[in-house]
Amino acid sequence: MGASERDRPIGVFDSGVGGLTVMRALVETLPAEDIVYLGDTARVPYGNRAASTVRRYAVNATGTLMEKDIKALVVACNTATAHALGTLKETWDVPVIGVVEPVAKRVLEVTKTGIVGVLGTRGTVRSDCYPEAIRRLDRHGGAPRIEEIHQVACPLLVPLAEEGWSTGSVAEEVAAEYLSRLPDLDFDTLVLGCTHYPLLRDTLAAVARRRFGREVTLLDSATCTADEVEATLRSRNLLSGAEESEHEFLLTDLSPAFVEMAERFFGTSPRSMTHVDITE
Amino acid sequence: MGASERDRPIGVFDSGVGGLTVMRALVETLPAEDIVYLGDTARVPYGNRAASTVRRYAVNATGTLMEKDIKALVVACNTATAHALGTLKETWDVPVIGVVEPVAKRVLEVTKTGIVGVLGTRGTVRSDCYPEAIRRLDRHGGAPRIEEIHQVACPLLVPLAEEGWSTGSVAEEVAAEYLSRLPDLDFDTLVLGCTHYPLLRDTLAAVARRRFGREVTLLDSATCTADEVEATLRSRNLLSGAEESEHEFLLTDLSPAFVEMAERFFGTSPRSMTHVDITE
Repeated sequence: MGASERDRPIGVFDSGVGGLTVMRALVETLPAEDIVYLGDTARVPYGNRAASTVRRYAVNATGTLMEKDIKALVVACNTATAHALGTLKETWDVPVIGVVEPVAKRVLEVTKTGIVGVLGTRGTVRSDCYPEAIRRLDRHGGAPRIEEIHQVACPLLVPLAEEGWSTGSVAEEVAAEYLSRLPDLDFDTLVLGCTHYPLLRDTLAAVARRRFGREVTLLDSATCTADEVEATLRSRNLLSGAEESEHEFLLTDLSPAFVEMAERFFGTSPRSMTHVDITE
Repeated sequence: MGASERDRPIGVFDSGVGGLTVMRALVETLPAEDIVYLGDTARVPYGNRAASTVRRYAVNATGTLMEKDIKALVVACNTATAHALGTLKETWDVPVIGVVEPVAKRVLEVTKTGIVGVLGTRGTVRSDCYPEAIRRLDRHGGAPRIEEIHQVACPLLVPLAEEGWSTGSVAEEVAAEYLSRLPDLDFDTLVLGCTHYPLLRDTLAAVARRRFGREVTLLDSATCTADEVEATLRSRNLLSGAEESEHEFLLTDLSPAFVEMAERFFGTSPRSMTHVDITE
């Protein structure tokens, strides 16, 4: 594998700006890597769309990243991971990493009680992608560690994060309402099954502590996925050896609202955001 | 004007399911009319999109209604009204009624203090469509009645309505937070500048009463627009004389989430919802 192979960028794909939490974790974990982010903001949100529509959009949009000659594709979107990961793996000739399996792996490493909660959007919960991935991995890892998995759809958490109301009494009351819908069991692990939820981590942790009377491990897709990307690139000898790196941000619709939200999700203001047209 | 002209349906266009509050008001006001609703759920929400994108989507989507030979087009979407009403009027050869001007007219009829608040999505507030329409009409109606207009962007109200959390402590706390952002003036009229907000009417009325220490008139686009449609059809001798009427619901994406929300916004379950493909 030549230096030029290793110097190609990583591509990160999301339906909108939530995937910037994954991008942020990637930048922290892999500071030497060039990364191109594509947010399909012209067609966000994918969450309520039919599975076939999501597949069509995902293949179509990631074509733009392929033109950038990426060495790996990160699908930083739960909906696209749930409905289109297999199609994307079949379509493109680079490693494709979704946000579900990395978290599922970590669940099996950290849970002791085997009682796991999953918070997600309505679409993610309906897709059952987290319980399925966790149980599939659990079956292939010796003695089963999972007792029960319970999901809660939390549609209001996304707008709370986007609005910048991640802490405070409204966020706490909403989080408490959702966590009250989990049964009274000995949960020790909660999956934050949406790329927006890392912004609500502190609120969710505090409310979970009150709800279950114990410290609960919160696992989010951003950090788990970044670790998985690193392992994948390392195993293929594709890690960059560069001293400097570039980060590029492409959006299919460049309204002021997205620019403002991007800053909130990425932590700092993305240096430049470029509009790209996607024609189907 | 022959009977066949009058028997053509009214077309109602929205980016999603919020416009069903307008449809519901139309059904109540004009029970004899056939109505075809088109929700562009495959591309919802329009709110964060660029104005040129909204115009393109709106012209494209309403073409489907034109194929139904509608006698009038109701643009039951604030974003499409703000950015695409002029284009739609130029494009189609039927009366086109948006949701902004009917409310603006009513504001001038009801306000006594001349101090008016406008609640809307971020995009609607940024477009300034309500203040502009109210001031334009005010200039053409003798002695000016408007002293001050203040707007508040309320991004969380849409997900609260969609989630079915229209009443209760979370809704009240969110509403109180938004209304606290209005200055301490003698508001007597509040515009609910989003088709989702009629679901929150009771909560907003109660919170407004507490906030301003008086009864505040809440004007919503659903009922004001239905009255305007009736007046338009009457003036053109286009009101139906039929004894029975049909209501048709077309969605560009037919996910279970939309079907569930449609029931919440329309009040009863739409008898049948049909998927239509829109090709640009």
